[in-house]
Amino acid sequence: MKVNGEPYRSIWVDDDGRTVVVIDQTRLPHSFDTRKLRTVEEAAHAISAMVVRGAPLIGATAAYGVALALAEDPSDPNLENAIVLLAGTRPTAANLRWALEDLGRRLRPLPAEDRAVAAYRRAAEICDEDVAINRAIGEYGLTLLEQAAEGKEGPLNVLTHCNAGWLATVDWGTALAPLYMAHDKDIPVHVWVDETRPRNQGAALTAWELASHGVPHTVIVDNAGGHLMQQGMVDLCITGTDRTTARGDVCNKIGTYLKALAASDNDVPFYVALPHPTIDWSLADGADTPIEQRDEDEVLTITGRDESGQETRVALTPDGTSAANYAFDVTPARLVTALITDRGVCEASEKGLQTLFPDHAAGAASS
Amino acid sequence: MKVNGEPYRSIWVDDDGRTVVVIDQTRLPHSFDTRKLRTVEEAAHAISAMVVRGAPLIGATAAYGVALALAEDPSDPNLENAIVLLAGTRPTAANLRWALEDLGRRLRPLPAEDRAVAAYRRAAEICDEDVAINRAIGEYGLTLLEQAAEGKEGPLNVLTHCNAGWLATVDWGTALAPLYMAHDKDIPVHVWVDETRPRNQGAALTAWELASHGVPHTVIVDNAGGHLMQQGMVDLCITGTDRTTARGDVCNKIGTYLKALAASDNDVPFYVALPHPTIDWSLADGADTPIEQRDEDEVLTITGRDESGQETRVALTPDGTSAANYAFDVTPARLVTALITDRGVCEASEKGLQTLFPDHAAGAASS
Repeated sequence: MKVNGEPYRSIWVDDDGRTVVVIDQTRLPHSFDTRKLRTVEEAAHAISAMVVRGAPLIGATAAYGVALALAEDPSDPNLENAIVLLAGTRPTAANLRWALEDLGRRLRPLPAEDRAVAAYRRAAEICDEDVAINRAIGEYGLTLLEQAAEGKEGPLNVLTHCNAGWLATVDWGTALAPLYMAHDKDIPVHVWVDETRPRNQGAALTAWELASHGVPHTVIVDNAGGHLMQQGMVDLCITGTDRTTARGDVCNKIGTYLKALAASDNDVPFYVALPHPTIDWSLADGADTPIEQRDEDEVLTITGRDESGQETRVALTPDGTSAANYAFDVTPARLVTALITDRGVCEASEKGLQTLFPDHAAGAASS
Repeated sequence: MKVNGEPYRSIWVDDDGRTVVVIDQTRLPHSFDTRKLRTVEEAAHAISAMVVRGAPLIGATAAYGVALALAEDPSDPNLENAIVLLAGTRPTAANLRWALEDLGRRLRPLPAEDRAVAAYRRAAEICDEDVAINRAIGEYGLTLLEQAAEGKEGPLNVLTHCNAGWLATVDWGTALAPLYMAHDKDIPVHVWVDETRPRNQGAALTAWELASHGVPHTVIVDNAGGHLMQQGMVDLCITGTDRTTARGDVCNKIGTYLKALAASDNDVPFYVALPHPTIDWSLADGADTPIEQRDEDEVLTITGRDESGQETRVALTPDGTSAANYAFDVTPARLVTALITDRGVCEASEKGLQTLFPDHAAGAASS
């Protein structure tokens, strides 16, 4: 998508053919900076420190992380070390594991001298596949938005949580892809953007993305969505997901479950957009998803621009306060109206997913 | 309750017998300051700018606001002007209207020269009544906590939203009163403190209160409570309310509804603590409660302490972002396990409230 009129992806290889470049998402929306990743350690740090975030982009960055490691040392032990290092960065994202398994399986049989080139090629493919996947999600989701907008006066009001836009993927986004396409087709959409504490990916990244593309939107605190739904001010919700189980339970940013409850209580459709690599076929029950706990400082402090435009971190609580910081929660499939995947729209259930992914049906049933 | 070992109420009359003094809650938890209110305009501003907040304390401040007005000019027009000015400060709080109606009814028949003294006396009575009411709420709530703690290993985990502690009242608090009493009786309690964006009354005020009194607590973002309930980490919820309808619908800080949904979905008891003046007998359906909208800057910015300890306001969103800022939402009675009032515990329903407040039964039925 475009930034200041220039087309960007969220990750790419620099002109030297080796260095990986990403947008530093910890600086947005205050500053648009790119950061160069030269080693696997830098790639791992970019993931764990959330310089890059969003399940698909984490997967792509991990793939390039393996390539960076092999460019330095293509030996068997270094390949395995890189995979272990990267796998430990964010425990919840399914794409991370998927990308690392994919690269490991492809690279292990190769002679060491061929591995780096193959890794860069495969990482680039994963990026291109992600863009194609998100375009497909956008098109399937667009059909749902078109149906919802039919006959409606005024804009279609869509609530989203966290950032599942192009910054969370390589391009287009998952939850936001249908919205970009609707906007581009002159279907009037307005997005309620959940702030998404503690890291404010909504207020910072989603608001920035939507503003850059010109999509009308309003930021709200995470507490507000229930009231808006009670008042009929939300036509539908769309979120992304970091991991989807074979039964359609959805593990996404903390707070997603609360919005799904409110949507269900007010008969507001609640859609989850997902690329198929976020499906964890080995997991049936969302309650078994490992939930990452992050540093309490993310809750106790917040970063913004002070009056001089300087980025400043401020403390929000009395000195000595403790915080708990669970990064994700699980929305049970019963609260999800439908899953919007790159293969089509389906019911959030084992049966629904089997209709779109019949090759995985057996694994899902037995898991 | 105590601050640095000294007993405080949240509002009192200064040694001159006229000036009203309050704790500046916009400065907490970063700084403990008091502010002197010398005119009705200063009292009205203290309410609208949330120097004081919490339905009971708003009522008490409004009562003293009338007294300040009459000390300056006890004429009929000035009395009516003061009531109109104060009534317009915060549209949702039922106690505000209750206190102003109470004072108007008592003061109008009096000769002008007697009004100021009578107003100060009645305001002081309202404060003392509030303390007695909250002590009663605390004792009734304590019984529920004792039952819940019986046979439980480890501390009783209680989630609360916003600040319904002594800072929201004259003393003790509503939702927090039972917790203070339980803690004082050596019943081990641990409080999950919802941050409560956008004004962070949980992270700022509830955390500060509980720390001052030594009650164990952990701050969480507003998004986290649903996950904690799914994981069995919350034994019960207690919140306050700004207005309760005759049918038991509860209008409280934005986001309360989302926690009540999660509590219901996970069979966690959800209690609402309320002094009887927050009951609006003229209102049956919570959906008819007027919901205050506040300035978007409360969402777009946040104030905290920077590294030098200075209070600093920082912007959280891209320049030019719009926000919506609804201050309250309505939790329907069906999601409330019970109401904890100063007259006892009852079902959140017209019938339940009638058992405790039979004198109001007819009005409620016809409204």
